[in-house]
Amino acid sequence: MTKKVAVLAVNPVNGAGLFQYLEAFYENGIQYKTFAVAETAQIKTNSGIGLQTDDAVASLKGREDEYDALVFACGDAIPKFGENAGKQYNQDMLAVIKTFNDKGKIMVGHCAAALMFDSAGVGKGRKTALHPFIKNVVKGCIGTDEKTVIDGNIYTAQTENSISILLPELLKALK
Amino acid sequence: MTKKVAVLAVNPVNGAGLFQYLEAFYENGIQYKTFAVAETAQIKTNSGIGLQTDDAVASLKGREDEYDALVFACGDAIPKFGENAGKQYNQDMLAVIKTFNDKGKIMVGHCAAALMFDSAGVGKGRKTALHPFIKNVVKGCIGTDEKTVIDGNIYTAQTENSISILLPELLKALK
Repeated sequence: MTKKVAVLAVNPVNGAGLFQYLEAFYENGIQYKTFAVAETAQIKTNSGIGLQTDDAVASLKGREDEYDALVFACGDAIPKFGENAGKQYNQDMLAVIKTFNDKGKIMVGHCAAALMFDSAGVGKGRKTALHPFIKNVVKGCIGTDEKTVIDGNIYTAQTENSISILLPELLKALK
Repeated sequence: MTKKVAVLAVNPVNGAGLFQYLEAFYENGIQYKTFAVAETAQIKTNSGIGLQTDDAVASLKGREDEYDALVFACGDAIPKFGENAGKQYNQDMLAVIKTFNDKGKIMVGHCAAALMFDSAGVGKGRKTALHPFIKNVVKGCIGTDEKTVIDGNIYTAQTENSISILLPELLKALK
């Protein structure tokens, strides 16, 4: 039986990253639901297009058991994360990331995903692929120069440009 | 001076394809406007996410001179194109494609883009990259097995998976 994936999309989100996951899940019959890391389900891409996701991240809290994997879709919201870290939706996001990992689910993401995982205390001692700018910023997990890394339950890609390399192994794990 | 691009998005559209163009244009300071090949500007991705584009294709008719290039973003609407060919938005799309090409503008697209160009009488004698299923369906343009082809003003990629190979040359042409 295929697994069910919760997809977190920050606001704004990199559409090229987000939709590489979503179209691949769609084409492979993997169920998914999208959650905006925002107050509402209505967000934008970096490129300014309005997106209607399924729900806001607050609705995912306490319902983690309904899913087998979590995807973090990065975007231009993240360089400003520091300014907005206290906002409820970002706190909900970190809580959801922690719960998914505590339950041993598959954790996926690109670009600054490893930094968000790290901020939630997830990935300690695990190697990760991540944006070169944050290689030395992560504390618990191990930053690398790899295009993609799979270490235990954690699947990471350096940027949206290497998601296509990560996808075949990820799809195998989700089927 | 960078050029301005009109981006056609069919309904439903493959989000992974569409947003590879849009995020690359955004990151490279290239102006663009998105037009839904639909009655309204509200469409969906193949993967079921609601997208708010800038306008519907009817609004692009007669305003082609405002742009230097046209992108055709393919999607699951196209396998059903035959059923809907007579709809006004599809007729508008074909008319817009013809006008852009008649004016010598840059024509871009992936998957079945070459078939839509061909249906509009565009690309006669030009080599194109296109989905293998339609290689022998196109009449005026020449189908190939290449991942990407640039022939004159026509830039094509076989599927959304080879847009990343086409982008560097396309971005050079748009700058």
